Amino acid sequence: MSFFEKHKSIIDRAVQANKERVFFAQYPEHPKAYGPDAGPDGEAAYKTRLGARYDELSQSAEAWGGEENSPYTREDLGVSYPLVDSETLINNAKAAKRAWANVSPAERAGILVESLERMKNRFFEIGYATMHTTGQSFIMSFQASGPHAADRALEAVAMAYEEQGRFPEDVTWVKPMGKFDITLKKEYKAVPKGISLVIGCSTFPTWNTVPGLYAALATGNPSIVKPHPKSVLPIAIVVAEIQNVLKEAGLDPNICQLGADVSDHLITKELAEHTDVKMIDYTGGSAFGNYIEGLSSKTVFTEKAGVNSCIIDSVADMKAALQNISFSVSLYSGQMCTAPQNFFVPADGVGTPDGKVSFDEFVDHFKQAVSGIASHPKMGVGVLGAIQNEATYERLQDTGNLGVQVALPTAAVDSPQFENARVGSPTVLVVDGDNVEMYEQELFGPIVFIIKTDNTADSVARARKMADAHGAITCLAYATNEDTKAMIKAEMEEAFVPVSFNLVGGIFVNQHAAFSDFHVTGGNPAGNASFTNPEYVNKRFVWVGHREV
Amino acid sequence: MSFFEKHKSIIDRAVQANKERVFFAQYPEHPKAYGPDAGPDGEAAYKTRLGARYDELSQSAEAWGGEENSPYTREDLGVSYPLVDSETLINNAKAAKRAWANVSPAERAGILVESLERMKNRFFEIGYATMHTTGQSFIMSFQASGPHAADRALEAVAMAYEEQGRFPEDVTWVKPMGKFDITLKKEYKAVPKGISLVIGCSTFPTWNTVPGLYAALATGNPSIVKPHPKSVLPIAIVVAEIQNVLKEAGLDPNICQLGADVSDHLITKELAEHTDVKMIDYTGGSAFGNYIEGLSSKTVFTEKAGVNSCIIDSVADMKAALQNISFSVSLYSGQMCTAPQNFFVPADGVGTPDGKVSFDEFVDHFKQAVSGIASHPKMGVGVLGAIQNEATYERLQDTGNLGVQVALPTAAVDSPQFENARVGSPTVLVVDGDNVEMYEQELFGPIVFIIKTDNTADSVARARKMADAHGAITCLAYATNEDTKAMIKAEMEEAFVPVSFNLVGGIFVNQHAAFSDFHVTGGNPAGNASFTNPEYVNKRFVWVGHREV
Repeated sequence: MSFFEKHKSIIDRAVQANKERVFFAQYPEHPKAYGPDAGPDGEAAYKTRLGARYDELSQSAEAWGGEENSPYTREDLGVSYPLVDSETLINNAKAAKRAWANVSPAERAGILVESLERMKNRFFEIGYATMHTTGQSFIMSFQASGPHAADRALEAVAMAYEEQGRFPEDVTWVKPMGKFDITLKKEYKAVPKGISLVIGCSTFPTWNTVPGLYAALATGNPSIVKPHPKSVLPIAIVVAEIQNVLKEAGLDPNICQLGADVSDHLITKELAEHTDVKMIDYTGGSAFGNYIEGLSSKTVFTEKAGVNSCIIDSVADMKAALQNISFSVSLYSGQMCTAPQNFFVPADGVGTPDGKVSFDEFVDHFKQAVSGIASHPKMGVGVLGAIQNEATYERLQDTGNLGVQVALPTAAVDSPQFENARVGSPTVLVVDGDNVEMYEQELFGPIVFIIKTDNTADSVARARKMADAHGAITCLAYATNEDTKAMIKAEMEEAFVPVSFNLVGGIFVNQHAAFSDFHVTGGNPAGNASFTNPEYVNKRFVWVGHREV
Repeated sequence: MSFFEKHKSIIDRAVQANKERVFFAQYPEHPKAYGPDAGPDGEAAYKTRLGARYDELSQSAEAWGGEENSPYTREDLGVSYPLVDSETLINNAKAAKRAWANVSPAERAGILVESLERMKNRFFEIGYATMHTTGQSFIMSFQASGPHAADRALEAVAMAYEEQGRFPEDVTWVKPMGKFDITLKKEYKAVPKGISLVIGCSTFPTWNTVPGLYAALATGNPSIVKPHPKSVLPIAIVVAEIQNVLKEAGLDPNICQLGADVSDHLITKELAEHTDVKMIDYTGGSAFGNYIEGLSSKTVFTEKAGVNSCIIDSVADMKAALQNISFSVSLYSGQMCTAPQNFFVPADGVGTPDGKVSFDEFVDHFKQAVSGIASHPKMGVGVLGAIQNEATYERLQDTGNLGVQVALPTAAVDSPQFENARVGSPTVLVVDGDNVEMYEQELFGPIVFIIKTDNTADSVARARKMADAHGAITCLAYATNEDTKAMIKAEMEEAFVPVSFNLVGGIFVNQHAAFSDFHVTGGNPAGNASFTNPEYVNKRFVWVGHREV
């Protein structure tokens, strides 16, 4: 039985889910669903990797290196990875190219789903690896790098499969000419564009990497994964499982290679600028992202930084709104690309069913809600996680020197399990609407601004301008009036920003669900791609139509 | 009844035709189908335009200008067009933007099909206008600028309509959380990217303009058409009809504007570089096309120049093959982007059922076939048409000075109807495969090279290299062996070039049929776009998904 036949029902369900956009998850997000042994086994598997060469890849090594360091223990993981010269990576991919192109889109989809099924068996191991490279809490590491990432990968595979099957493989074209007909046999092929490079980031090493990787592979392109040197292990496990399935299918494992590097010899630019690299997926900072977008003759998919806004006009339930907001601000210490940073609040306050809450009162409620999470014994570090790198931590510590009103300073937060954990509670700063220079920067980490505006129209105008100029991935809004909501939507969607209204309870603006929410729209400077819309896969291959008399 | 309801059956048929890719034409290509009066009426309508202001547009004019000159009569048409400042064009488009975005994709499709139905009533007038600006024969002018162009426009409208309807307008997303559910209302909008600029060319003023124009409009973007100053009238008529329908629908006619200019003040760059222009469709030379592709933060669709190859290995019927080839070379004097220029022929000759025909014999047959068309009383200028501009004509006259073997020199061809017509028969040059510098240039016009190669593998390698480096829109091949055909396909499709095999009879490599043949693949330097594949419309809007508790 081919891998396609084996997984046809999963693929069909995923194709349908992409269309319907209602809730669908192939991989349960609850750790319990994976049985009682999966947790301990996964932790043990993670621990055996520490201090050792990562030897699961079907790649030759020219040298070994690694520099991961846990934000929880502040100790080096000591895992080393094969370091391969960029020219060798390219040559390997070139050698594997035509064979992968000749595998049918259906069988490619089957092979990739098989790799996800094997990844599933390692969700806990990947979870621990993610925790100790990114600083995410364990549960978030598990979910984001495990089931949520696998669902995102499946979503991309399904969209690629659907799009490649959209035109007939062959037709007979008959043109009536009156006295006679002209007949042509025609065939249509989705021809892969060429070698793909997928550049990972340090905070979401699988969730932000697998959509582009699986989209590139599903459309027939050999792919080189260049992880962030500080977050390699989670995606190395995924690449190893893809290689295992490729080998079992009788294919060259170099169809998917890990291109690990170390800080003193980064190979990203060598790969990105290489003539044979035709397609680049990138997640990370804007400066490097703009460089990637500026490379000529490449098909590029980027997710860069944005500055996300929250527009607060009026609320039905202030407490519920602020619980939701403060959780979004605290979750993984604001290190999510979807986290809100700028809260626009009218100078005359926020509408409630009991009348206006003044601006100052709102700030007060806001900081209480935020500090409530950080100091809560059952939440605290479990929500905040640890801060991935020292630069973010220092930025947070320095917010007192920005010269603006500090409504809530950052504070130390104890981590009962890891005494050396790099943790700090969110800081809340208050500025005037005109102080654009201050809040137009992305201050990555748990740093938020409450911005005093003339009124909601002013709030929206400022949020839109920010999105047009600097990009935004999300917008959160609280408004109880239908006209106000319509106005916010009309303005923000012209800046290609999706708006989430009146979130309360267990759903947060930070969360984008596979098969339902397009992640990043691709329409503003926060990134030029959106997963998974049709363009995300269509741009990876070319329709070529041959004809014959 | 809305325009969508009125034209729903046409739109549905076109959506289906895009999927099936078998023969479909909404607009018959036979002039007879339009009734006995259509021809004389169209010619008369064309003649009344001469020497007058083109006053059918709903645009204010800051000045008037025009510089069209007939390649047949060598006389100025004397038609003048409103010249509008580029900033005014942009401001008009900005003012019209949101209203057009708020028209539903279905109703936009209806409005645009209505404009095609009105264009249909003017196919003959457009045909004469095309003939006397491009130099195409009347029948080709009629077909290319009339029914074939309208079918291409309809194809784009149908694809845009289908893609914008691909996700539900709204869904209720319910995530089961065990003890409770999380429910979100979600809506999905295809948000138009912004102002579109469509830059036309002198040889196919409607056929190469309407796909981008209709794709941009159908996806909700206001559009500015910047025609080539030497070929304005055919597309001006189309713009006027679009404006008429917009007005009838109660919409701002500035949703579609003509941005005519004259050589001493071209406005193309002003428009292309304008921040508010988000999308550019371009047909024309490679140098300017590369400049357009290099503009940052624009969504760009180009059709530039390529060098098309013909690979000759073996033929079933030499006479039939050469009749077909020589017609492709002669049709509109090689001024089609799909015309073959480079004929790769093995040094040891061409296989036939009766054994090899030597290289020299082949050249002899080839030149006889080509000169046979030019000198044929019933074909001649009727196939060749006239040469659009003086530079192409001079290039043709100068081919004797290229320093290569001239197998067939260009000759004068009489035009019985127009004594001043700019006409010249094709020239056939013979070079060695190693003389790459000579044949890697696009020599626009009726100039072809027969290139002597080591063998068919060498022919294919050279054709592929040419396509990779300089682009190619088509490839014609004659081969009777299945393995050879498979090899040619495998190589050429990796350069994203479609191959037409063994064409004989009434179908030519130059012809790409709407609803069936993708025109240009977008995968090589001949252009980055393909009409109409899904990407051609998807890149013109952004999916934005709002959510609400």
